[in-house]
Amino acid sequence: MNDGGTLKVIAADSSVALLNEKFEPLSIVAAASVLVDSPYREADVFLAEPIFVDAQNGHEVIVHEAELCRDLIGRVGADVVHLDMSLGACPVEELSPIQLTNMRISMRARQHLLKVLPKLRKIATEITQKHGVEVLAIGKESMPVRVAELTSGAHAILYACQKAVEGKKQVLLGLPSKCQPRLGYSGVYLYSLMAAEHDVRGHADDAKGILNKVNIAELLNPCARGFRALRISRKT
Amino acid sequence: MNDGGTLKVIAADSSVALLNEKFEPLSIVAAASVLVDSPYREADVFLAEPIFVDAQNGHEVIVHEAELCRDLIGRVGADVVHLDMSLGACPVEELSPIQLTNMRISMRARQHLLKVLPKLRKIATEITQKHGVEVLAIGKESMPVRVAELTSGAHAILYACQKAVEGKKQVLLGLPSKCQPRLGYSGVYLYSLMAAEHDVRGHADDAKGILNKVNIAELLNPCARGFRALRISRKT
Amino acid sequence: MNDGGTLKVIAADSSVALLNEKFEPLSIVAAASVLVDSPYREADVFLAEPIFVDAQNGHEVIVHEAELCRDLIGRVGADVVHLDMSLGACPVEELSPIQLTNMRISMRARQHLLKVLPKLRKIATEITQKHGVEVLAIGKESMPVRVAELTSGAHAILYACQKAVEGKKQVLLGLPSKCQPRLGYSGVYLYSLMAAEHDVRGHADDAKGILNKVNIAELLNPCARGFRALRISRKT
Repeated sequence: MNDGGTLKVIAADSSVALLNEKFEPLSIVAAASVLVDSPYREADVFLAEPIFVDAQNGHEVIVHEAELCRDLIGRVGADVVHLDMSLGACPVEELSPIQLTNMRISMRARQHLLKVLPKLRKIATEITQKHGVEVLAIGKESMPVRVAELTSGAHAILYACQKAVEGKKQVLLGLPSKCQPRLGYSGVYLYSLMAAEHDVRGHADDAKGILNKVNIAELLNPCARGFRALRISRKT
Repeated sequence: MNDGGTLKVIAADSSVALLNEKFEPLSIVAAASVLVDSPYREADVFLAEPIFVDAQNGHEVIVHEAELCRDLIGRVGADVVHLDMSLGACPVEELSPIQLTNMRISMRARQHLLKVLPKLRKIATEITQKHGVEVLAIGKESMPVRVAELTSGAHAILYACQKAVEGKKQVLLGLPSKCQPRLGYSGVYLYSLMAAEHDVRGHADDAKGILNKVNIAELLNPCARGFRALRISRKT
Repeated sequence: MNDGGTLKVIAADSSVALLNEKFEPLSIVAAASVLVDSPYREADVFLAEPIFVDAQNGHEVIVHEAELCRDLIGRVGADVVHLDMSLGACPVEELSPIQLTNMRISMRARQHLLKVLPKLRKIATEITQKHGVEVLAIGKESMPVRVAELTSGAHAILYACQKAVEGKKQVLLGLPSKCQPRLGYSGVYLYSLMAAEHDVRGHADDAKGILNKVNIAELLNPCARGFRALRISRKT
């Protein structure tokens, strides 16, 4: 516990995919880790990176997310680490192939997890030994994981705008579930639209003024309810 | 793809039931097919019909919905057709009794589907051969299916008002999940109340001025959370 | 049915837990039964009580909820009683150990239910014989159960404030799923934040002026998405 008696949480997530015109995901754009403290509505500190990983290899991104948590806790400390794996808040160090077999997860998810489990456990052990805190596979139950998703999403919008400016062609960007961007002078705010999350958001600072160089249209993903998309094109 | 590079979708749904005083459904009031294009928030073109089908035979309405899609695509064209069956976006033409056996659906749903499958596949084949587009069993994952639900719901409100005027007795109308009507000079707008669908709606034009002849009170269905109902009575 | 032709429902729920600093529940604070009539948005009449039951024994609270329904129906009458058990709206009188075995509920939930079933059936039989109405295990499908949850939650806030004043130390109170309090001169309103429940709420009258004696900060529960918490401390 920190001085204020509150639980300081570090969490990570990756999000937002470039889509083809049939709204099928091509690549994951960004990942971020965040430090979130009471009242747990947005990030106090964060690390965000463009990743542009093939959507087919999405399950491997979790390792990079864990690394971003390790990097952030080294700088700012925390009481617990939350990863975006929904396994009942089980400590990652205790996850074993046998345990995964007994969990109610799909065959495919299990196979993906088994591949990355050795790397994940190594990072979790490192965090626990060095900082004395647990790394939990809590996933969708965690509010800080949602804040990480929105923070990486806000940054992904900027990275995709940059790509549209450089690549000269239109970009179709699929946003995280149930959220909506607001663009302003200071950058991008990505607000949650989930029930009871009206005051939860991520932010990315537009230091390079990239938003001024693009036109952005918001639409609903017709093939995935609850997901919005942005059509981004370079201003001519 | 059409000229703008967007995916034009035709979808259909039926919705809204007359209820008895215990809030049990008696009959399904309306069906509609819609053409929905980017940004996928409401119908560009639609076909709507009063159907008043016994709620016990609700599973057969899917055939009529497919027919309404076939009629609409004949008039306005589209890139894909979405039906309100949640079977993982599987093409209806490829659905076979064996495949249904392997899907995670309830015994009852499977039996109902098996009855209508021959008719459904016939219509899907007709659409694919004539217009070169797929008919997908995508159901609740499809935003255009939601727009069809709200569009048929808006029309159902008008049809139920007509019934209240003619029948001289009060009508209790159960609305689609998580939506709320706004009545105006031009007719009925039915707005989604689902998270992240605040800008999604259906509309029905009140050409006959039927709304002026009724009193409408909105209430919550006490026995089905998320569902609202309208108590409609003739003005005296 | 009552004179207006509407279905009068009595329902009960208990809610809100004192939390430790890791946001783990310690004890359930309050229970309430409510009479809800059309349009089913808030309680017309209620009975609310502080209970402070150990969270480990939460499954036994259902018996007390049934008793609060029995007490309320004795005073004001109703057409049906809804309990917070999600068993497909099955009449509680008809629930048998064999039937529970066939239902899709977890082993743990079944074991808890089996323990309290004799008491529950006794109360249900008493209600049915004396008042001629059914007691349904409808749970999360029932809007009146949600109104009971919000009504008990509003009262729990006042009880927790009283505890903070008396106990001299800070209290961390976990609220029911997806709701948010608004404090005013007349007491506490607890509004639902669920989709399509924007007009549903519970209320507790602050007759003793306890709200004036405390400071209240609202935060999000970091370990349980959708749940908010209040940090309550005595004004110095």
